[in-house]
Amino acid sequence: MKIVVVGATGTIGKAIVAKLEQEHTVITASRKGADIAVDMTSIASIQAMYEQVGKIDALVIAAGAAYFGPLTGMTPEDNEQSIDGKLKGQMNLVLLGMEHVNDGGSFTLVTGIMMDDPIRQGASAAMVNGGIRAFVKSAAIELPRAIRINSVSPNVLQESWDKYADFFVGFNPVPVERVAQAFVKSVLGGQTGQNYEVY
Amino acid sequence: MKIVVVGATGTIGKAIVAKLEQEHTVITASRKGADIAVDMTSIASIQAMYEQVGKIDALVIAAGAAYFGPLTGMTPEDNEQSIDGKLKGQMNLVLLGMEHVNDGGSFTLVTGIMMDDPIRQGASAAMVNGGIRAFVKSAAIELPRAIRINSVSPNVLQESWDKYADFFVGFNPVPVERVAQAFVKSVLGGQTGQNYEVY
Repeated sequence: MKIVVVGATGTIGKAIVAKLEQEHTVITASRKGADIAVDMTSIASIQAMYEQVGKIDALVIAAGAAYFGPLTGMTPEDNEQSIDGKLKGQMNLVLLGMEHVNDGGSFTLVTGIMMDDPIRQGASAAMVNGGIRAFVKSAAIELPRAIRINSVSPNVLQESWDKYADFFVGFNPVPVERVAQAFVKSVLGGQTGQNYEVY
Repeated sequence: MKIVVVGATGTIGKAIVAKLEQEHTVITASRKGADIAVDMTSIASIQAMYEQVGKIDALVIAAGAAYFGPLTGMTPEDNEQSIDGKLKGQMNLVLLGMEHVNDGGSFTLVTGIMMDDPIRQGASAAMVNGGIRAFVKSAAIELPRAIRINSVSPNVLQESWDKYADFFVGFNPVPVERVAQAFVKSVLGGQTGQNYEVY
């Protein structure tokens, strides 16, 4: 399989690439430091990426910036960061990518535990996660040529616990390897319309 | 209570107003034909509405345009209609309205059944519904001064069945009165962070 991983340089992205590249051709994409430079907030950049990679079997997204900050004082512009980044970015990768994915191929998007188990300062990010989950469930019934679509919803990572423990009080962080394994299930398995909770 | 209903001229809005105005002061808002003209896609228009109404006890939203159309061929711009209308519109009514809502007041937003029970051509609208549900659940833990927030997720209405039956094949439409009753529960009840499914 020929698989593009967007956000390949992040903690989750690296773990996904490590698993998939053992038996597949993986093309890494990221803002910088990957095979292909892509800015998922830009339609032109997404289109350029697809033109560069040609036909693919799977697109995996492990990227997308969202706004974190107190609800009181959050401005429409703050919230827009989440919408432009993780929400529209991922949806546009699907909308503009459908024709580039081979028959029976797949899209795998990323959501996150905050939509189910809210934390302070996470309302804007939770919105994105819930939006992507619903989009995936609905898009699955319409994708042509047996193309599948799923999302993975990670808990906070053990690998990022030092940085985020104060935000995710009382959470039980999970190893990134388990999260990457859910992406593998989406890419190589047969399911569609699912949101894999790695909680 | 002093209650503002945005989208008061629609089928659901009218039914909400009919119930609430029996014992409360209801101010209707809509693009046109209501006490106050408001365009929820415009930050300036939302701000003008809040300045006009002063302090309120509850904001109810029964409005928000979303894009319907086949996933194949849906453009980023098509999807943007849903984001600008029903998603950002509702979120901005909350973000810009917090300071105008009295202690113990409430926000009630609107989602929809397509996020749980997808229909063809509904992927963009489903995204909005899922995003709002997650935002509501998360915002509820952060709202100050005992302000509550919920959403109502209506099934297709019996009153709109002639128009939408071909899209909602096999659904069992519900009377608008049941949907309005869920809004009443949100405004006058004690719960927060809920998405009331009227399925």
